Amino acid sequence: MRPTGQLHLGHLVGALTNWKSLQDDYDCFFMVADYHALMSEYAHPERIREWSIDNVIDWLAAGIDPSRSVIFRQSDIPQHAELFTMLAIVTPLGWLERVPTYKEQLREIAGRDLATYGFLGYPVLQAADILLYKAHAVPVGEDQLPHLELARELVRRIHSLLKTELFPEPKPLLTEAPKLSGTDGRKMSKSYGNTVALAESPDAIRATVQKMFTDPQRIKMTDAGHPETCNACGYWKVFSPEGYARLWEECRTAARGCVQNKRELAESLIALTEPFRAARSRYSADAVERILQEGAKKARLVAQQTIAEVKHAFGLAG
Amino acid sequence: MRPTGQLHLGHLVGALTNWKSLQDDYDCFFMVADYHALMSEYAHPERIREWSIDNVIDWLAAGIDPSRSVIFRQSDIPQHAELFTMLAIVTPLGWLERVPTYKEQLREIAGRDLATYGFLGYPVLQAADILLYKAHAVPVGEDQLPHLELARELVRRIHSLLKTELFPEPKPLLTEAPKLSGTDGRKMSKSYGNTVALAESPDAIRATVQKMFTDPQRIKMTDAGHPETCNACGYWKVFSPEGYARLWEECRTAARGCVQNKRELAESLIALTEPFRAARSRYSADAVERILQEGAKKARLVAQQTIAEVKHAFGLAG
Repeated sequence: MRPTGQLHLGHLVGALTNWKSLQDDYDCFFMVADYHALMSEYAHPERIREWSIDNVIDWLAAGIDPSRSVIFRQSDIPQHAELFTMLAIVTPLGWLERVPTYKEQLREIAGRDLATYGFLGYPVLQAADILLYKAHAVPVGEDQLPHLELARELVRRIHSLLKTELFPEPKPLLTEAPKLSGTDGRKMSKSYGNTVALAESPDAIRATVQKMFTDPQRIKMTDAGHPETCNACGYWKVFSPEGYARLWEECRTAARGCVQNKRELAESLIALTEPFRAARSRYSADAVERILQEGAKKARLVAQQTIAEVKHAFGLAG
Repeated sequence: MRPTGQLHLGHLVGALTNWKSLQDDYDCFFMVADYHALMSEYAHPERIREWSIDNVIDWLAAGIDPSRSVIFRQSDIPQHAELFTMLAIVTPLGWLERVPTYKEQLREIAGRDLATYGFLGYPVLQAADILLYKAHAVPVGEDQLPHLELARELVRRIHSLLKTELFPEPKPLLTEAPKLSGTDGRKMSKSYGNTVALAESPDAIRATVQKMFTDPQRIKMTDAGHPETCNACGYWKVFSPEGYARLWEECRTAARGCVQNKRELAESLIALTEPFRAARSRYSADAVERILQEGAKKARLVAQQTIAEVKHAFGLAG
């Protein structure tokens, strides 16, 4: 995950909940991708360090367990850069220019000059991140599939060039995450200011939820509601998968008004995010730094072994 | 220097002789650029390791002194890859596409697929090699000036982005090397098979020199020679700057025949290259490896310090 800002409800639903449960079935490596963050933030990199720590606090609060999983920061492991350099050398330029997200992001990401050599190599560095740990599987969203496919193509190309098997072909673990809109009903995005940060204060959550878009066809409280078109009801569906049916029914029968609905939603989100606020007093920046250093030790053991094998295969010393 | 084959007389005249004397005025870092070698040799990397050792033996024989200078191998210092990654992130793609050597080499280097992401970043990795040691000056040939200019532009860009001074702007030390043609009179190049390796056997040198192109207008031994058009006489000028005037005069006055001239040139080149053959018995591969490891220790001390400063400036931990 790239440390480019505070984590919000979208990260919880789209990634962290899934990461937590992956720990039951896999030996997991969770990485703060600070080099990747730098690719868009290089003109104002001041807060990457702070966001790295802040994001990891949210990971810990979400149940990512440093005693079961390896939690580490990309730039702490020089082998990521070493493998990136070697992969770069065998990556056909055309493969990168063809990656669908590349031109899309060049166009879409405003206020950032992404026409850099490093950004063109974004998926090469991702491939290094994956292959360094000989990952068998990577949890990805649909939009990241072309990047994972590039990593798989690189594995095949290296095996064919060097006539030796170095890496497993990493498989995608597609997450079926429930769809969560921003609080204004648009796509959730930090740049729209329509997110709820995981560490948001209760008052801020109440204020945000109070302004949420609801059912436009319901003018008076006694009108029947249409919960499937109401953003607040959509949040219930995501965050209360067992209880939402009853609430939707109360909405449809006008037994529940929008004001009450949003007040209860705010309290529910406040309860849900309580562990994230609590973690702010539990974990100091130093404590998180120690967890990252412990993780780096474990990651380095694997990374050093892989790099020794790869350098040998590439005819380099070491 | 890239370890892509045996070193020959062209390397001695064009680089090693100059390197040796630079040691009197500078703290020198001499690097085996094995990542750069890999950029053209990745499809057949088997011999890079062997060539690295073999080239360093020639450096030592030429008077590069490991007690005065740092002799090391690029891939032994992970900080080269780390700085490459960070420089990549701030390098505008257009700067690289504009480098004059880039398209030229894509066209000219036959039998190698250079349309890779890594090869496009060739001068970015060079910039990392230079800036990692905060080099003030780099001995370069004219053809490498655009690459050094890119390193200088990167320094200015980083200073302006991060609002801090990290590196000196490296200046070119243009070498005025005498011009040495291949033994067939064409441009000297391994791919033309017109070189004399520094470690060549005396018999091989005699055979090569015997076949050298001489003055085409001199048919009989009694004809007056034109040493300025004779390739063998050209070699005298390069390798015997004090004595060649007398030999040229003997050629012009037909006091010296081509057969004698080439026989003496062969013996002169055999004497000149004697230290390179002798070094083959003096230095085992293990001994060179130890010298490279000692050099790596010294290089790493500087490299670690620079990377810590650069990471800090880029907002990364470490």
